[in-house]
Amino acid sequence: MAVYTEIDDDQLTGLLAQYNLGSVLSCKGIAEGVENSNFMLATEKGTYFLTLYEKRVKPDDLPYFIGLMEHLAAKGLACPTPIHDREGNTLREVAGRPCAIISFLNGVWPRRPNAKHCHVVGTAMAELHIAGQDFEMQRRNALSIDGWRPLLDASAERADSVCAGLRDALEQEFDLLWKGWPKTPGRASDSPLPHGVIHADMFPDNVLFVGETLSGVIDFYFACNDYFAYDLAIALNAWCFEPDGAFNVTKGKALIAGYESRRRLTDDEIRMLPLFARGAALRFLLTRLYDWLNQVPGAMVKPKDPLEYWQKLKFHRQVRGPAAYGIER
Amino acid sequence: MAVYTEIDDDQLTGLLAQYNLGSVLSCKGIAEGVENSNFMLATEKGTYFLTLYEKRVKPDDLPYFIGLMEHLAAKGLACPTPIHDREGNTLREVAGRPCAIISFLNGVWPRRPNAKHCHVVGTAMAELHIAGQDFEMQRRNALSIDGWRPLLDASAERADSVCAGLRDALEQEFDLLWKGWPKTPGRASDSPLPHGVIHADMFPDNVLFVGETLSGVIDFYFACNDYFAYDLAIALNAWCFEPDGAFNVTKGKALIAGYESRRRLTDDEIRMLPLFARGAALRFLLTRLYDWLNQVPGAMVKPKDPLEYWQKLKFHRQVRGPAAYGIER
Repeated sequence: MAVYTEIDDDQLTGLLAQYNLGSVLSCKGIAEGVENSNFMLATEKGTYFLTLYEKRVKPDDLPYFIGLMEHLAAKGLACPTPIHDREGNTLREVAGRPCAIISFLNGVWPRRPNAKHCHVVGTAMAELHIAGQDFEMQRRNALSIDGWRPLLDASAERADSVCAGLRDALEQEFDLLWKGWPKTPGRASDSPLPHGVIHADMFPDNVLFVGETLSGVIDFYFACNDYFAYDLAIALNAWCFEPDGAFNVTKGKALIAGYESRRRLTDDEIRMLPLFARGAALRFLLTRLYDWLNQVPGAMVKPKDPLEYWQKLKFHRQVRGPAAYGIER
Repeated sequence: MAVYTEIDDDQLTGLLAQYNLGSVLSCKGIAEGVENSNFMLATEKGTYFLTLYEKRVKPDDLPYFIGLMEHLAAKGLACPTPIHDREGNTLREVAGRPCAIISFLNGVWPRRPNAKHCHVVGTAMAELHIAGQDFEMQRRNALSIDGWRPLLDASAERADSVCAGLRDALEQEFDLLWKGWPKTPGRASDSPLPHGVIHADMFPDNVLFVGETLSGVIDFYFACNDYFAYDLAIALNAWCFEPDGAFNVTKGKALIAGYESRRRLTDDEIRMLPLFARGAALRFLLTRLYDWLNQVPGAMVKPKDPLEYWQKLKFHRQVRGPAAYGIER
């Protein structure tokens, strides 16, 4: 929960003067979101979301994120669309930060996702993968396997302070994944695995529902080009475990069935799913571990528990094949 | 900035089922506010504010706060009004906390208040004092002079770690105020000083504006029965100092002129204003000092700088009469 940068009245009025949105009626900092400063902005024209991009987002990546949202929204996906200013820009600056005004989406994220939610999310993910196929820009996944080694190095020494034996387990896990992981997909890659634009962070708090209908997928600030099945593996981790740490195969089946209702997984993708599930668990374990070990005194964000993902990784380590996730072929 | 209590989907749906507000379209935790958990709630009927009352608010005080908002809003004041559920209740419980749904007010609080804002705020304060005259309930000001001694005792030993000499200065200041402070006003008080319902926390972040028009006074969770001139003294402290610590007498004049445009101060009130200004500065200095010295590791709220109010108190200590605040009679 976070608002890192305050905007004063003159700055806000100055910013809005660049848009055709009328004058400001209300602007409230939002507690959700840990990377950027977010405001719910009401103007004479409607309600919007104002995001100020903070240090963890590279300014060079912003045109990709903003362009992708615009691309996907134009294709009819339920996702925020950037608002253009009078000169056509979708990115501006306020209070010394890059910023964007995007459309506001109704909906509440599901605190206790059920199998129905999982099916709907799988469907939306496949639609996103398909809609992204003709998006022209490229962004390497900075948090794929190439990015894990430096994270692991930064945390290894203190990993056992979080959980005894964690360091050795992480090293072993990384080595195993390193051997089996497919080459990073590029534009001209000859990888047999389908790849393209992935969301890479499709957690429950990034998917909004009105009742049981999906009303929006939000937060594209980890989106990148990578393997589709890896994105699905991230979602299996994020949606299909129970609070007690057990994998719920009914939810797994629902997620995958939702996905396959729009895009059928190839045999290669199915074969890779268990490895990708381990990789996805390791990726979130490593970033959470890093944040846990490097808490800033007085920070306004509570770090998430890395051990939740250690639990999940342990589940994936004992999986003997794709059937464990609910795939029946 | 704070959301202390999360509400899950079922809890929210269950709560809304008690009201005639239709179903939930959106519910976002708000970063503003340090005492309670606040959510901007959009339903089929409109936009509302949902507040969950946290530990620092006494449940016994809630009927006073909620009743006061309803009383003032019914009199036409720009302030939130509590929404009644189907059974007529304005207070309910969700996620183990007392809660209320109140009307949402447009507006942005002024980050850099000018003299015009001060005039408008003075006017609104006098209107609040007048409108509260026939409010039936009573609440003692827990943070008036009787409440300062325990706060001072709790911080005295470590006060000098914040600023050398602060402990002695606080003790001297408290003793001086104790001698000159009028008796706590009661319902049957014979005090010559006008008293009644005061807001007691009318800081810039509790007053919303659309353009230069006041659109709402919010946050009645320190409201109580006390001297009107003390409320004005709190506002002089909160609105009329520049960021560099200087008192801006033009703003002071504007605030008082705004107030007197609705309710003329008595000679007694004017005479007491310098003492009340010192007291108000000491009150916020003491609560900030306490919070500063008792920071909870991992807390989501950054404590406010107590020394800002030490600066203000030093100004008041050298004041020779009401003219210093812009009173010309």
